[in-house]
Amino acid sequence: MAYDGNSMTSRTYLDWNATAPLRPESRAAMVEALDRGGNASSLHAEGRAARSIVENARRGIAQLVGAETKNLTFTSGGSEANALALSPGWGADVLLVSAIEHPSVLAGGQFAKADNLPVDVNGSLSLTGLQVALEHVSRRGKRAMVSLMLANNEVGTIQPVKAVAELVYAAGGLLHVDAVQAAGRIPIDINDLGVDLLTLSAHKIGGPQGIGALIRRSDKLHLARPLMRGGGQERGLRAGTENIAAIAGFGAAAAAVRVNLSSEAAMMRALQERLEDSLCNAVEGAVVFGSGVPRLPNTTLVSVPGTKADTLLIALDLEGMAVSAGSACSSGKIAPSHVLAAMGVASELALGAIRVSTGYATEEKDVDRFLIAWRKCVTTLLKRQQVAA
Amino acid sequence: MAYDGNSMTSRTYLDWNATAPLRPESRAAMVEALDRGGNASSLHAEGRAARSIVENARRGIAQLVGAETKNLTFTSGGSEANALALSPGWGADVLLVSAIEHPSVLAGGQFAKADNLPVDVNGSLSLTGLQVALEHVSRRGKRAMVSLMLANNEVGTIQPVKAVAELVYAAGGLLHVDAVQAAGRIPIDINDLGVDLLTLSAHKIGGPQGIGALIRRSDKLHLARPLMRGGGQERGLRAGTENIAAIAGFGAAAAAVRVNLSSEAAMMRALQERLEDSLCNAVEGAVVFGSGVPRLPNTTLVSVPGTKADTLLIALDLEGMAVSAGSACSSGKIAPSHVLAAMGVASELALGAIRVSTGYATEEKDVDRFLIAWRKCVTTLLKRQQVAA
Repeated sequence: MAYDGNSMTSRTYLDWNATAPLRPESRAAMVEALDRGGNASSLHAEGRAARSIVENARRGIAQLVGAETKNLTFTSGGSEANALALSPGWGADVLLVSAIEHPSVLAGGQFAKADNLPVDVNGSLSLTGLQVALEHVSRRGKRAMVSLMLANNEVGTIQPVKAVAELVYAAGGLLHVDAVQAAGRIPIDINDLGVDLLTLSAHKIGGPQGIGALIRRSDKLHLARPLMRGGGQERGLRAGTENIAAIAGFGAAAAAVRVNLSSEAAMMRALQERLEDSLCNAVEGAVVFGSGVPRLPNTTLVSVPGTKADTLLIALDLEGMAVSAGSACSSGKIAPSHVLAAMGVASELALGAIRVSTGYATEEKDVDRFLIAWRKCVTTLLKRQQVAA
Repeated sequence: MAYDGNSMTSRTYLDWNATAPLRPESRAAMVEALDRGGNASSLHAEGRAARSIVENARRGIAQLVGAETKNLTFTSGGSEANALALSPGWGADVLLVSAIEHPSVLAGGQFAKADNLPVDVNGSLSLTGLQVALEHVSRRGKRAMVSLMLANNEVGTIQPVKAVAELVYAAGGLLHVDAVQAAGRIPIDINDLGVDLLTLSAHKIGGPQGIGALIRRSDKLHLARPLMRGGGQERGLRAGTENIAAIAGFGAAAAAVRVNLSSEAAMMRALQERLEDSLCNAVEGAVVFGSGVPRLPNTTLVSVPGTKADTLLIALDLEGMAVSAGSACSSGKIAPSHVLAAMGVASELALGAIRVSTGYATEEKDVDRFLIAWRKCVTTLLKRQQVAA
């Protein structure tokens, strides 16, 4: 992202997991759709043009994850797609979720509650823990829905979804995968992963906020009682006037990802290596979480014992750095990360965790500027604490 | 709307109740927000800027209906706001709705079902019918939630909401009002109306699609189990990353309505009189529905016995006219209107009903062009049928 070292307004944006800047292709598609107008359910020319935008985008986004076009349902974002996915109405009785899921999954959707599954020190789901939980559900004569994120939003850990799918199907269960943070960073194929339901969000891949999708692997999967009912939109799965401009922007972002994923991911991976090599050399005791397992190429969660993320964030913000303390999806308060707690990270270390996340427009100089600012802020904080002690 | 009589692409858009063209102020606010980016839950400068856009818009939209800012919850549109409103979680056991509500209300939200209340020949709720239903609920020891639209989307009938509120509160019930079609056409004051919950949608007032609001009159009203839970956004009432650009566009549209409502409404009323006077003179037997009661200034539903709306719509579309057969919120098929059926309109007459709806940019020449096209299409259709008969 552009940065002018002499300007007060210069900023380095490294919080792409919170929201990614809009891709130029998405912006253009949105502005065109906004100017065009029309309700996709209207039968006149304006309505048919709007419908065509919706269906073209649907095709391109489904293609991004190897799904059939007709099995993609647009929602207002990842949280709504997760709420729609987590419903007994798909034919399950019990919900099992990893302990490090996004809050919208932990909340359990339309299930009365979500039972948490353990993860290891790197944030990988424990397959043994899953097996035990599935057997417990089977013994009670119930059917499980398992919800697991493809990649974690805070640490970036990529989950063993294919292995999980085998266990879930052997137990006769259903599998939902929240792929919100994985999309645009690693390839996704709904059939190869073998999951029943998959959640996407546009604004994490450079599309607009306010639009997402729930994608079924098969149209044989039916939902008894959708969240929003009334109008017949989205084949009855989601009532409400279609958000044409956002859908257009989502479609354009998906098209860009389809073309550029391998080059963008390689660039993010190179920046990640540059960043993490330097972080651990720059400050003694710095820890990068999940470094022992497959992780997203764009996500680095780092902590230095004795630092506090909230203080550090403010200091970094003043230095022009936009990063986060874990996820952004909360009420604006920094609480200890439920993800790190589930990974068994000591709370002193967890409270210092800063997330750096990159995207399609991040450059080497952004990472280098962050490294300088981070070292300066961390060193200052640690010194201040030594003086105070 | 601009129209060039010599161009194949020239169009006259008179389907504002389906969706209104975006106001220039909204477009500008959206583009600015899109270019700015940021997640409103992030603590850094980009996040705080996004938060400020959200809260400024919230204040302005709440002001449009005389509500307190903190009592406005953003949703992805009117259908979601209605689904959020219609929940036993607000403290009611039974849902009563008028028979002419929007499908998203008739679907009953989180209630097991919605009991329909009768309307008269003009589409006005029967107060007697309401009274009987409320007494029936009270006798069963239950508490009723009543959901009534402020103005009907097809006919435009304005409901006696203040009188309804008195009856509902006398019976100890809750009152939700879907004001989606009333906003931007008549003044709305949540305290004057005396309703508990009120639904708005941006794209009917010249804001963007994909954003709406549910507004409470008092923060003493609590919802036990919101539709989307997880992140703490919207004070826990609606999880999910805020749609900053759409919220900015909604805020700008609300600001425009606050300033221009009386002049825009007067203009729409004048166009409506011009239209309806001519309709009834142009073709013998033409009926304008709801003409005997207070109606929105922008909505005219007209039918000529012996015509079919689907055929007429196609003919009008070819003449450059974008109008609709009742509502657009369906699966793209023209079914007999549930609104006209509830009003007791004979199905032969109901099947010919064409809705003409105007907005802030409609001009006299649009109405005049419609009148010419309509008379031509209706006359041709009737002649063709006489020949066939």
